[in-house]
Amino acid sequence: MISFESDYIAGAHPEIIRRLSETNLEALSGYGSDKYCESARDKIRKAIGLESADVEFLVGGTQANAVIISTMLSDYEGVIAAKTGHISTHEAGAIEFTGHEVLELSEKDGKIMPGDLRAFLKDFYANDTHEHMTFPGMVYISHPTEYGTLYSKQEMKEISGICHDYKIPLFLDGARLGYGLMSKNTDVTISDIAELCDVFYIGGTKVGALCGEAVVFTKGNKPRHFMTSVKKRGALLAKGRLLGVQFDTLFTDDLYFRIGSYAIEMAEKLKEIFKSHGLNFYIDSPTNQQFVILENDRMEKMKEKVVFSFWEKYDEDHTVVRFATSWSTTDVDLEELKAVLEE
Amino acid sequence: MISFESDYIAGAHPEIIRRLSETNLEALSGYGSDKYCESARDKIRKAIGLESADVEFLVGGTQANAVIISTMLSDYEGVIAAKTGHISTHEAGAIEFTGHEVLELSEKDGKIMPGDLRAFLKDFYANDTHEHMTFPGMVYISHPTEYGTLYSKQEMKEISGICHDYKIPLFLDGARLGYGLMSKNTDVTISDIAELCDVFYIGGTKVGALCGEAVVFTKGNKPRHFMTSVKKRGALLAKGRLLGVQFDTLFTDDLYFRIGSYAIEMAEKLKEIFKSHGLNFYIDSPTNQQFVILENDRMEKMKEKVVFSFWEKYDEDHTVVRFATSWSTTDVDLEELKAVLEE
Amino acid sequence: MISFESDYIAGAHPEIIRRLSETNLEALSGYGSDKYCESARDKIRKAIGLESADVEFLVGGTQANAVIISTMLSDYEGVIAAKTGHISTHEAGAIEFTGHEVLELSEKDGKIMPGDLRAFLKDFYANDTHEHMTFPGMVYISHPTEYGTLYSKQEMKEISGICHDYKIPLFLDGARLGYGLMSKNTDVTISDIAELCDVFYIGGTKVGALCGEAVVFTKGNKPRHFMTSVKKRGALLAKGRLLGVQFDTLFTDDLYFRIGSYAIEMAEKLKEIFKSHGLNFYIDSPTNQQFVILENDRMEKMKEKVVFSFWEKYDEDHTVVRFATSWSTTDVDLEELKAVLEE
Amino acid sequence: MISFESDYIAGAHPEIIRRLSETNLEALSGYGSDKYCESARDKIRKAIGLESADVEFLVGGTQANAVIISTMLSDYEGVIAAKTGHISTHEAGAIEFTGHEVLELSEKDGKIMPGDLRAFLKDFYANDTHEHMTFPGMVYISHPTEYGTLYSKQEMKEISGICHDYKIPLFLDGARLGYGLMSKNTDVTISDIAELCDVFYIGGTKVGALCGEAVVFTKGNKPRHFMTSVKKRGALLAKGRLLGVQFDTLFTDDLYFRIGSYAIEMAEKLKEIFKSHGLNFYIDSPTNQQFVILENDRMEKMKEKVVFSFWEKYDEDHTVVRFATSWSTTDVDLEELKAVLEE
Repeated sequence: MISFESDYIAGAHPEIIRRLSETNLEALSGYGSDKYCESARDKIRKAIGLESADVEFLVGGTQANAVIISTMLSDYEGVIAAKTGHISTHEAGAIEFTGHEVLELSEKDGKIMPGDLRAFLKDFYANDTHEHMTFPGMVYISHPTEYGTLYSKQEMKEISGICHDYKIPLFLDGARLGYGLMSKNTDVTISDIAELCDVFYIGGTKVGALCGEAVVFTKGNKPRHFMTSVKKRGALLAKGRLLGVQFDTLFTDDLYFRIGSYAIEMAEKLKEIFKSHGLNFYIDSPTNQQFVILENDRMEKMKEKVVFSFWEKYDEDHTVVRFATSWSTTDVDLEELKAVLEE
Repeated sequence: MISFESDYIAGAHPEIIRRLSETNLEALSGYGSDKYCESARDKIRKAIGLESADVEFLVGGTQANAVIISTMLSDYEGVIAAKTGHISTHEAGAIEFTGHEVLELSEKDGKIMPGDLRAFLKDFYANDTHEHMTFPGMVYISHPTEYGTLYSKQEMKEISGICHDYKIPLFLDGARLGYGLMSKNTDVTISDIAELCDVFYIGGTKVGALCGEAVVFTKGNKPRHFMTSVKKRGALLAKGRLLGVQFDTLFTDDLYFRIGSYAIEMAEKLKEIFKSHGLNFYIDSPTNQQFVILENDRMEKMKEKVVFSFWEKYDEDHTVVRFATSWSTTDVDLEELKAVLEE
Repeated sequence: MISFESDYIAGAHPEIIRRLSETNLEALSGYGSDKYCESARDKIRKAIGLESADVEFLVGGTQANAVIISTMLSDYEGVIAAKTGHISTHEAGAIEFTGHEVLELSEKDGKIMPGDLRAFLKDFYANDTHEHMTFPGMVYISHPTEYGTLYSKQEMKEISGICHDYKIPLFLDGARLGYGLMSKNTDVTISDIAELCDVFYIGGTKVGALCGEAVVFTKGNKPRHFMTSVKKRGALLAKGRLLGVQFDTLFTDDLYFRIGSYAIEMAEKLKEIFKSHGLNFYIDSPTNQQFVILENDRMEKMKEKVVFSFWEKYDEDHTVVRFATSWSTTDVDLEELKAVLEE
Repeated sequence: MISFESDYIAGAHPEIIRRLSETNLEALSGYGSDKYCESARDKIRKAIGLESADVEFLVGGTQANAVIISTMLSDYEGVIAAKTGHISTHEAGAIEFTGHEVLELSEKDGKIMPGDLRAFLKDFYANDTHEHMTFPGMVYISHPTEYGTLYSKQEMKEISGICHDYKIPLFLDGARLGYGLMSKNTDVTISDIAELCDVFYIGGTKVGALCGEAVVFTKGNKPRHFMTSVKKRGALLAKGRLLGVQFDTLFTDDLYFRIGSYAIEMAEKLKEIFKSHGLNFYIDSPTNQQFVILENDRMEKMKEKVVFSFWEKYDEDHTVVRFATSWSTTDVDLEELKAVLEE
């Protein structure tokens, strides 16, 4: 059975497995202090064009979100996010678990609109009772969003400017950053992100690693004793090498970007296949996640031969489903999908 | 200067002050174990017609909300509330501080609509990824709502029925309960509330007490070692008598209901005054809070002679403001207001 | 039945009741912004000799401890306290509820010894793995301690100096401060405390008020948006006047100190009565709490006529019990106690 | 340079790397639902002789401790642990971060003594004010302990019996379980643990895996919606296969036990080497961690050629250091160490 269930159905990119194997017997100290972590940090700093960045590694996306947000917010603050943001919906309350509120904003195609953000902040401070309310202390955006969409450079600049005006950090969740950067329809580079965001992470789990997210603090703003806060949240990996070797490999010879590029190419082909079969998209996604509207009967029948994800009900007779590509998607997968659609 | 700023601008109803004074020298044990607390519990049980109810006293409304919600939810659960609910907006993240998410629902006039609630719950369990989401573990309603509106008995029954179907408790925030019960436009009695809700509180702070909320668990469902959980949240009052004597007084000779009734009467008069001066209401409130739309110029001018609360911007030229009545509102206050309006 | 159960068995000092009654009908705004709170703040600043102090009011002691500690610590920090400290033992985990660890230190007569404190801090930083441990971020002392004992000025200076060396604040829990200041055996004044501590509170609940603790930040170090953090913890009293009027009264004509003085006098008489009946003390307390060792048989018999508190088991046949005095203790109470002892 | 720094200086046991590589391209669903997780669960159930056990995988030890403890305790409860327990000292307050107190007990050689435990519990319930204290809601033991020591079967039985008497679960932290089970000086089997403990985990990180701990609930007591609680704590691994494949491998052909056995053998040789050089041990450890007392000068000199861990100061002139063995320790390492000692 072919699978487009997610971009994390396979293990790691073979090059990563090779490097883990090669370095396996070396004696290294723990907790992110080993030479591979150091080397990975250096390579990431170079790739983003910011020598002063602080880079730390965490295991997963929800963990990264909770650690970053809760260590950067003040007690009286919450984080602004789109209603459809990952932290608003699919993290089982991980941010609230740390004692902080997610302040939900309406969205368009999964994105926060600069105008809405500015209005929200203005209204907050105009409100006479705002001392009884959670202060907006950070803005969270995901890029690509949960719907595979991307901010334009102009939008990101505006959001960054608003954050700057209100002196709150902009945090970019880059769980699928590789696909966003390599999209045919983007003018945002990783250097732009490093410049415009105060903190972001480069997703590994969904872009070729077994696990791991590289958190980048861009403004000398890494929380004090960050490692202790990470430990306190049960998020400190003893064998930090597992993350170091992986990111060192991903940032050697542009592997991270090549993975992104390849998956985008496969996604473009996937799109063509769906279009040529007269299927409609729920949203126009320029990245590796494609949201297709299927008739319920057809969906049930396809399920027998293809794995994909339920997304949401479209109407009584139709459902939105997600197909994702990754480094592990093959042309054979696409051929088989085509065959299924032609049945 | 006359004030309609809130229903807690004065101290306590004089009868309460009298009783605090009278009992002041008695030696009583602490933490809610004294005879006045016991007596107040008995009187409340009688007033609500439920001998088996568990009654506990807390100091304030936000505290009551946080204590009740966080001790009744399971780890993986959050609480459903209207977007405009007090816990969603004006408690500075007090629920999130306890590690739980507030699941916001759209509202009508400050109320959760039964249909929306049922749809939300149905969709939640229909969602394939709901194990990654906060489970809905309780429904929070306020009665009167933050906009002074009231649930009808039919609406409350439906909401209670839905909660029952999904096996989650219904919690009613009665910070202003006295005004809701004594409204001319309600068919909901306190016995109905005791029957339909799993837990609720009878607000003292805003209905004649110096402070205090009487929490009522109606189904033998008081959390185990509740007093220890209250202590753990810094919410256990050493001199529990302060709450006991007050509620004992409020539930002697129907004082609580008489206070509610009086304030409603004053609110009706207030309404007439505004109407007769051609002013419009933002919402049709049948309780002691009245939301009036004022031209900004007029508002600024009135501020010099009357205290009221900013509520929200209506449009560029108008503002919604709140006038509240209570046991301490006098006919003289109303006459003076009239005079100001006639200027 | 006479009672020495605690120093909060009675209501409030009659002068406080009188003032609450007198000011009851005044319309005042809420949340600590009223003129009585302002006046109380001023009087406290004068009484402690520190015009720049920030003064805020909270309802109870455990609440004050949790609010102060959790808003002043950084994420990676915990608070050092004596093993017998109130926060270590009798607050049901209120500090831990805010996500912070209490780092327990051994004690002598309820007090932290400066040498132990310095050794603890030195060892912490000497430990190679301290990045995996909770950082000591504050020192908590109670004065009087839970055993009624007092720090000498010299001891307090040394502890303050150590805190200064390690750049962590010294926090003094003054739930019973009035008795400590008025003890015959102390050289510590309230100005000393304001000078040596970074934050402390002046206990009202146990020194004549119905409830209330006045928190004093002495070094321009009140946490930002403190009121919002207080609200977030459910600790913001709507009718702030209840606290303002009480502290305004307590700091008018030295009432707070007179209450302390009177209770100390009664405690001295109590001590004499016990001594003259050949009873031994568990600890030599110079304040209003006296810890007496009773034979179990005698204790059971006394219980029929006198209320006091169980403290701890002394040995198989003896128990340590506590007798407390306050403004409400009378000479008649003492006479009756004498009579019981003579039976 | 040879290293005895810890039992996690190398990557994973080569057999694990081989299996990760072999299964790498298979398309598998996430979050612990794949066939390798299922197979690993089955094998673990067989290995512990308890078909009804629930097995779940987490990434690391501190994370496992925090997740297990906080999902199994009631709101008003804390966890009892030895003062030297990992959760008491080296987890940066991870348990407190979840809102629960660690109730520290004195220890002997890192172990809780059954008599101390019983006395603690008895005293707690004898205390009149225990409603103001954190209830003991679980007992945490580590086996081996942080000092490499082991409970005897008799001790474990007694502790389990006490827990049973007080109806609180016994939780065993088995971060290094493999070494405990394979020690020459133990009469405790993994089946004994499954029988006597209510929950425990089988450590992978320190016994041959890249990461991972297998949590075993033995009494049908897995917390409801455990996966959601895991997600809420940022502890749910997307590519659950990484844990599944590793534990499936560890429990194939007894690899887990063979790793334990091998490291114990190396530790025995290490012990002999130290003894034959006249060095003393801080504690008599029968497992893979050896605590040696070194003169400070010698320690400094050795550091140039051997990596080991600082443990604690012994006296002014001596230090306790730790040497750990694992599957990756070789005879060559031992020979080199011997050479260094003979210098």
